[in-house]
Amino acid sequence: MTPSVSSKVGLIGLGAMGSGMAASLRRAGFEVYVFDVRREVAEKFSKEGGYACSSVAELGALCDVVVSVVVNAAQTEDVLFGPRGDGTGCADTMRAGSVFVMCSTVDPNWSVALEARLEKLGLLYVDAPISGGAAKAASGEMTMMTAAKPDAYAKCEAILDAMAGKVYKLGDHAGAGSKVKIINQLLAGVHIAAAAEAMALGLREGVNPEALYEVITHSAGNSWMFENRMAHVLAADYTPLSAVDIFVKDLGLVLDLARASKFPLPLSSTAHQMFMQASTAGFAKEDDSAVIKIFPGIELPHAKK
Amino acid sequence: MTPSVSSKVGLIGLGAMGSGMAASLRRAGFEVYVFDVRREVAEKFSKEGGYACSSVAELGALCDVVVSVVVNAAQTEDVLFGPRGDGTGCADTMRAGSVFVMCSTVDPNWSVALEARLEKLGLLYVDAPISGGAAKAASGEMTMMTAAKPDAYAKCEAILDAMAGKVYKLGDHAGAGSKVKIINQLLAGVHIAAAAEAMALGLREGVNPEALYEVITHSAGNSWMFENRMAHVLAADYTPLSAVDIFVKDLGLVLDLARASKFPLPLSSTAHQMFMQASTAGFAKEDDSAVIKIFPGIELPHAKK
Repeated sequence: MTPSVSSKVGLIGLGAMGSGMAASLRRAGFEVYVFDVRREVAEKFSKEGGYACSSVAELGALCDVVVSVVVNAAQTEDVLFGPRGDGTGCADTMRAGSVFVMCSTVDPNWSVALEARLEKLGLLYVDAPISGGAAKAASGEMTMMTAAKPDAYAKCEAILDAMAGKVYKLGDHAGAGSKVKIINQLLAGVHIAAAAEAMALGLREGVNPEALYEVITHSAGNSWMFENRMAHVLAADYTPLSAVDIFVKDLGLVLDLARASKFPLPLSSTAHQMFMQASTAGFAKEDDSAVIKIFPGIELPHAKK
Repeated sequence: MTPSVSSKVGLIGLGAMGSGMAASLRRAGFEVYVFDVRREVAEKFSKEGGYACSSVAELGALCDVVVSVVVNAAQTEDVLFGPRGDGTGCADTMRAGSVFVMCSTVDPNWSVALEARLEKLGLLYVDAPISGGAAKAASGEMTMMTAAKPDAYAKCEAILDAMAGKVYKLGDHAGAGSKVKIINQLLAGVHIAAAAEAMALGLREGVNPEALYEVITHSAGNSWMFENRMAHVLAADYTPLSAVDIFVKDLGLVLDLARASKFPLPLSSTAHQMFMQASTAGFAKEDDSAVIKIFPGIELPHAKK
């Protein structure tokens, strides 16, 4: 794939997803400029063939397309406008007509407003939450749920394609990307909590958990999350691939979105309560499947020796 | 497959599942005796090569293995012991050592008790709920979730294999078959309601429902039920393959089971409320995906012309 406009790309946030995305961009032939608050992580990437920037402002001045892969809206605000909007962000140095690609999971109404705020600065915007996990990010096979104005897409199409196996284009302005991502998180969160509730009932009733897993994963009760997360419970491995507190946050975003239009979400609010119970009971940083630990009166599977 | 003990099998209840199972047994070479309260349905089956009985008592006297495919525990009681236990049931005529195969979705504690009640009459019992839908029942590819004593399995193994593509053996006495089936219904019911909640939020937020379906069915938020039932919503086709009231019943059984051991099920109870709301709002006999009609302030997809 030939880079369309500029071969320089900036990427901010070299976490589990961002580091894989930066590597995918480099493999595709882009000059990749990176920034991470952990200076050593950016230096490591530069040794592998990228360029480490010492600030987001430096990165913004160098790149026509900036991809932001930070944790949430608050960090995105810091990246764009500096802490407390002090003018040290990348939006303060990006040239007019440059594109900001926002990959975090955020309140869609905030994303819609951000497009307008950046437009006032002469900047283009892509609402582009990502999905698929670290392994797929590293191999360039992750999914992007995007929405943007045609001008913005035109300037970064090749960059999006280099990072993702599938780029869904869901609208001609910001919003639908974040909305679809939020709805995916609604289902993911409810399904993890439901999987835990089902497995917990099985344990309470003395059903063999391995047999239950085998039957359910071949039946109409299956979900992507049941199959994935209940394997962690059977292995008694609560090493966080994604932590309980991520769903405290993401189901919170789901409920915030719905509350803005006074829309009832009975299952999402129930699942949110379950994750908050797990978090405050001491499992905040464990794998999200640890939500099963809120159920009383059961003995969970032990790790195989 | 060679019939193991007797080539005669009785099957009671020629509904969507039972009629397919009876046909599978006949194809496998068994002499199949059937009973249905709708006399004409049994007569039709007899013309295709089976034998119609005029009562469950007659059927019980003729067959060493009786497969019951009625709607619930109350109908199973009638089949076994006659209405109000008046002695006109098949248990009243079955020979000692015969096997009763119970395929309904029931309270597992009732199924456990039934095994003991039949044992007192000298009858064997297989706890054998079924899953997979009418098409798979007709082709002999459905799933059975079974538990039984070894003596009972020994007498009907070939019969179970003739009806199902997969026979899960989950325990050496009654209970685990019905428990796993109930847990599958927990997940199925919660997932249908969650799919409806997610699609409803998408419609509220102005997301294109076809695009949302496409993304979710390729993402970690997917479930077997989302993929299957939201296709009905997109087509605006609420023809009941399985009705709202089935989940009023089945999630009721889930909650009954858990209540017996004072076990909390936050999501199941919330989903049960949603199906009851849909039922009483007028959608009881519509497809279970009609649970989406409880959500206010949205316009559902219309049928394509």
